[in-house]
Amino acid sequence: MTKVGILNVTGYAGSELARILHHHPEVIISSVTGRSASGQKLNEVFPHLADIDLVIEPELGASVDLVFSGLPHRASAEKVIPLLDDGIKVVDISADFRLKDPETYEQWYQTEHPRPEYLKEAVYGLTEIHRADIPKARLIANPGCYPSSAILALAPAIKEGIIEPDIVIDSKSGVSGAGRGLSLTTHFAEVNENLMAYSVEGHRHLPEIVQELGRLSTSPPAVMFLAHLVPMTRGILSSCYARLKDGAFPSSQEARETVVELYREFYKNESFVKVCSSPPQTKQTWGNNLCLVYPTVDVRTGRLVVISCLDNLVKGAAGQAVQNMNLMLDLHEATALEMLAIYP
Amino acid sequence: MTKVGILNVTGYAGSELARILHHHPEVIISSVTGRSASGQKLNEVFPHLADIDLVIEPELGASVDLVFSGLPHRASAEKVIPLLDDGIKVVDISADFRLKDPETYEQWYQTEHPRPEYLKEAVYGLTEIHRADIPKARLIANPGCYPSSAILALAPAIKEGIIEPDIVIDSKSGVSGAGRGLSLTTHFAEVNENLMAYSVEGHRHLPEIVQELGRLSTSPPAVMFLAHLVPMTRGILSSCYARLKDGAFPSSQEARETVVELYREFYKNESFVKVCSSPPQTKQTWGNNLCLVYPTVDVRTGRLVVISCLDNLVKGAAGQAVQNMNLMLDLHEATALEMLAIYP
Amino acid sequence: MTKVGILNVTGYAGSELARILHHHPEVIISSVTGRSASGQKLNEVFPHLADIDLVIEPELGASVDLVFSGLPHRASAEKVIPLLDDGIKVVDISADFRLKDPETYEQWYQTEHPRPEYLKEAVYGLTEIHRADIPKARLIANPGCYPSSAILALAPAIKEGIIEPDIVIDSKSGVSGAGRGLSLTTHFAEVNENLMAYSVEGHRHLPEIVQELGRLSTSPPAVMFLAHLVPMTRGILSSCYARLKDGAFPSSQEARETVVELYREFYKNESFVKVCSSPPQTKQTWGNNLCLVYPTVDVRTGRLVVISCLDNLVKGAAGQAVQNMNLMLDLHEATALEMLAIYP
Amino acid sequence: MTKVGILNVTGYAGSELARILHHHPEVIISSVTGRSASGQKLNEVFPHLADIDLVIEPELGASVDLVFSGLPHRASAEKVIPLLDDGIKVVDISADFRLKDPETYEQWYQTEHPRPEYLKEAVYGLTEIHRADIPKARLIANPGCYPSSAILALAPAIKEGIIEPDIVIDSKSGVSGAGRGLSLTTHFAEVNENLMAYSVEGHRHLPEIVQELGRLSTSPPAVMFLAHLVPMTRGILSSCYARLKDGAFPSSQEARETVVELYREFYKNESFVKVCSSPPQTKQTWGNNLCLVYPTVDVRTGRLVVISCLDNLVKGAAGQAVQNMNLMLDLHEATALEMLAIYP
Repeated sequence: MTKVGILNVTGYAGSELARILHHHPEVIISSVTGRSASGQKLNEVFPHLADIDLVIEPELGASVDLVFSGLPHRASAEKVIPLLDDGIKVVDISADFRLKDPETYEQWYQTEHPRPEYLKEAVYGLTEIHRADIPKARLIANPGCYPSSAILALAPAIKEGIIEPDIVIDSKSGVSGAGRGLSLTTHFAEVNENLMAYSVEGHRHLPEIVQELGRLSTSPPAVMFLAHLVPMTRGILSSCYARLKDGAFPSSQEARETVVELYREFYKNESFVKVCSSPPQTKQTWGNNLCLVYPTVDVRTGRLVVISCLDNLVKGAAGQAVQNMNLMLDLHEATALEMLAIYP
Repeated sequence: MTKVGILNVTGYAGSELARILHHHPEVIISSVTGRSASGQKLNEVFPHLADIDLVIEPELGASVDLVFSGLPHRASAEKVIPLLDDGIKVVDISADFRLKDPETYEQWYQTEHPRPEYLKEAVYGLTEIHRADIPKARLIANPGCYPSSAILALAPAIKEGIIEPDIVIDSKSGVSGAGRGLSLTTHFAEVNENLMAYSVEGHRHLPEIVQELGRLSTSPPAVMFLAHLVPMTRGILSSCYARLKDGAFPSSQEARETVVELYREFYKNESFVKVCSSPPQTKQTWGNNLCLVYPTVDVRTGRLVVISCLDNLVKGAAGQAVQNMNLMLDLHEATALEMLAIYP
Repeated sequence: MTKVGILNVTGYAGSELARILHHHPEVIISSVTGRSASGQKLNEVFPHLADIDLVIEPELGASVDLVFSGLPHRASAEKVIPLLDDGIKVVDISADFRLKDPETYEQWYQTEHPRPEYLKEAVYGLTEIHRADIPKARLIANPGCYPSSAILALAPAIKEGIIEPDIVIDSKSGVSGAGRGLSLTTHFAEVNENLMAYSVEGHRHLPEIVQELGRLSTSPPAVMFLAHLVPMTRGILSSCYARLKDGAFPSSQEARETVVELYREFYKNESFVKVCSSPPQTKQTWGNNLCLVYPTVDVRTGRLVVISCLDNLVKGAAGQAVQNMNLMLDLHEATALEMLAIYP
Repeated sequence: MTKVGILNVTGYAGSELARILHHHPEVIISSVTGRSASGQKLNEVFPHLADIDLVIEPELGASVDLVFSGLPHRASAEKVIPLLDDGIKVVDISADFRLKDPETYEQWYQTEHPRPEYLKEAVYGLTEIHRADIPKARLIANPGCYPSSAILALAPAIKEGIIEPDIVIDSKSGVSGAGRGLSLTTHFAEVNENLMAYSVEGHRHLPEIVQELGRLSTSPPAVMFLAHLVPMTRGILSSCYARLKDGAFPSSQEARETVVELYREFYKNESFVKVCSSPPQTKQTWGNNLCLVYPTVDVRTGRLVVISCLDNLVKGAAGQAVQNMNLMLDLHEATALEMLAIYP
């Protein structure tokens, strides 16, 4: 049994990790920390974790083989760097190691990166895109929830070079994506029966999307990304739009069929990305680790339209992290991740 | 592997059964029927059941060892009686075999019971109350969702004879309890941001509650039961009120402590009923098979107050049915029911 | 035009007052204060109040004839007492002047009352119960949201002496009742798809209910009051239960008819209390000043059951306050309160 | 007083018309029809309309001066054409008279248009775009809810010729937009906590948008329009994307400022379109007749981004219809439409 620790188990990604790992047959949660609630029992703070008998500690206590960090950016790097220096494997759910370029990090997060050399070493943990590098990695930068949905939606089209590098990504997220920290934006009476775009000037998930789509393409894409807050707890739906390259297909109708085949081929061996034959709904991913992708072509405008759905706390955070851990520990990739979505 | 069938898999109880049984290591779903959608593949109708490869049939096809019925009352009895006659075990989620008295059935369901002798044989499948009779039963009448929450909340107090037989049960349910059939009452724009009492003249779950509480007590209780519809998908919370018998306890404060002990003792060996030390919330049971029970005494009025929570589709329907099946098949009672609640 | 001020316009009761008063033909909002957001323009904080051109001040600025306080208890008394000393009329939405007995206040609010003599003078501003005293009052203690729904539901039965003085009030409220201050309990992802009882040990609205029902009755009632939080923004529904006095009616059926007549008679001249012929829903009061009351008798147990609904921010707070103001200013009671509920 | 009739008052647009017109000082609702509920009293079907004393009739009864139709397409034309032939003024909320080209109508609605000559005569009732033609019109084709939000978002940019004619409109709507008719898509348990795109192959509101944007531009725009269903009752938010024409502005920063000025100028005299200085939220239009428009330029990609919000039942249906009626009757345009949004 591998011993794992969770930094900041009291956040939503952290508590979701605990829920998933509790059923994992090959690992044991041996230490958890929390920014709030330190000293309390885990199951007092989270009654749904009643079966997990652990005390929330101020710092990781027991010796652990692998650590998940559910801390916010900057705080995560601070805690994670000494662990890495000690040779402990890390899956970091924060944004601290996702961007390869330290200047881009500094520009978007308004803080100097404390250890840029780890940026080079870190593997961007979107398993379907970087699977080859994950088993031997020491540091996984788990992707953001929006980028997971956007990159998986667009990767096949970008890789195959069938679209113009001018992309609109319109994403909509449930409120749990904003975390467990209190704010007026996540106050029930304010957000219920309400819908808004936010971070219109530029969302921090944009540079991740640009970096990863850029690595798949020969020319850097121009990405317009807009995030919206939807009055529901879990789920992200991204609607992605790009023009097909002129002459790439004989007709729009043929384009549509070819695009679907191309997507099916791209993801044919994936357990957690399904190419759907009808438009997906976020509820079909409620509590599971799937990303559902629906590619089509708008025959009127010749545009590629891809709709993708996932659960922001599972495939968009904790589930993706466990998927990465499974590969790092040489386990079957789907271990502890076979749960079906809860419906209705 | 035991082969099971599901009648009316296209309802919410039926699809929830499929979800739970899919992970069951000792049974295999071998045939499913649906009132609508007959002929379609199960995973076309329910994308979240993508991994289950079955066609929805008009009638049970393959030979099955045990059948779950998710049909509505009356329709259920019609399908289930021939199966029983053929010696097939049945867990009936409908109300058709819950009431011991055929006249009471006729009075509340406005139809003559087609085979009253099965009413005698049927075991009311609230496992915690009738566990001894379940393993050898051929026909389980799975309890209603409201009665499950109400009976588990009150059984210890009734059994111990500490309350007056004059009880108020104020229950609140999420909308999935009304099923998958369409009605204005379950139309999103009507029920969202709305709260109402319904069936004020008398809800069909009342006679079940009266029957089962009556069996636990020496004098038949007078039960006032009122159901409310709450704008959420899953969950029932019942608030139960009854006066403590005069002189049963030296003081209200002592009553409170004694009552908690009494409840803990009553449920001490149960996997699926937890006596909580703080008031429970329905979300703590979202997707799991728990009933959370919080007993206390209002020191101002000397009343017993018990609050109970469960997921109407799991402990209130499909999970309870699987719990019963496990005992009927001589399996560990908790098999396939260990899932934690989804939070947040 | 009467000049009115609003203390703490940045809370939900305060902003709702601004919304309602904006359309009032006889008053003008001349000064508003806010605990947060002082110095900002009102319409920057609340875009829906775009048409109101006022700056949020730290203290009431202009001379005003009447002041509404939307401050929390204790803070409200501090601000309101000097105004009263200066002869300004006050409608206080906080709990500071609702309880006649200073010791009861101290016991429930854990603070000594700063000026008990005003408790005597204050009129409990449930217009339908204390209409005669309101026009000449200098200080109105606007009722709590739960007490408004409970007292209006029970007043006719208590006044007529038809029920035993042993009452259960099970109330359910939308989340805006908890105010605009941040807490985990009102964090969207925690409260959405969730249902809970709270303040089970004793809610601060209980002594108000006891006081007011007691004033209507010859013997003090024993009241069990339990509050629940429902995942919706606005609305309170109270379900009230009490046994009919033995022999008060020849039969349950006659009791039911007589009770309905008695309620209709009691409220026959009221604009804002409607006795319904079918069970009401909170959405029927969304944004309006109505309290809908549905009395019936459960023929099985001989219990009176009364269900009442109102919008906690209108009839349960700001609308009630304006109704009181109208009488204090010798205006038509319904001025600016004629709005219909928003549906759906 | 002008006498107006409402066809299909039992739909959401129809009942919202009744709510708004009830407070209108210059008109009286003299007859209402309903496809369901004919013969019932209006206030039995809609308790929130308790003050309106009318019986729902199978056909318009009393003589009326102006008729609103809340019928679905095709059914609307059938009822409305005889009225027009009789010289009665009509505001048709259905899609039957919105498209100028009968073939386009036939293609999208799969039915021949019963009287194409009325298509020519009808004025597309988006007041801000066609105000000049409305006072003298006999037949107003009230715009669709999505087109209202999209056209108002894009009209200034199209009119001024600053964007490429290649536009993406990503719209999100609350569930009331789907009407009061029952379907699985609007069943609470299915749509709550869920988010989906729909009509991906082509939504019927697309040709309206193309027609109206085309009339404002010299070259016909290529419009990609995708509709999404959001788990809330009211509100539409449209996010619109288009590239600025090369060389239209010296820099992205200047483009942003100029675009905002251009929008402010375009709508400077409008009561019901507000150009916002921060991104709007649908809740800011809950129950009122505003369309909030936020134009900006994404400096990274040089794209125009416009976000617009409105209440689909008010500015997107009944409120817009009353705005048009006011002009047709030579009344002040804002009569009965001054209500503020309900918050929270």
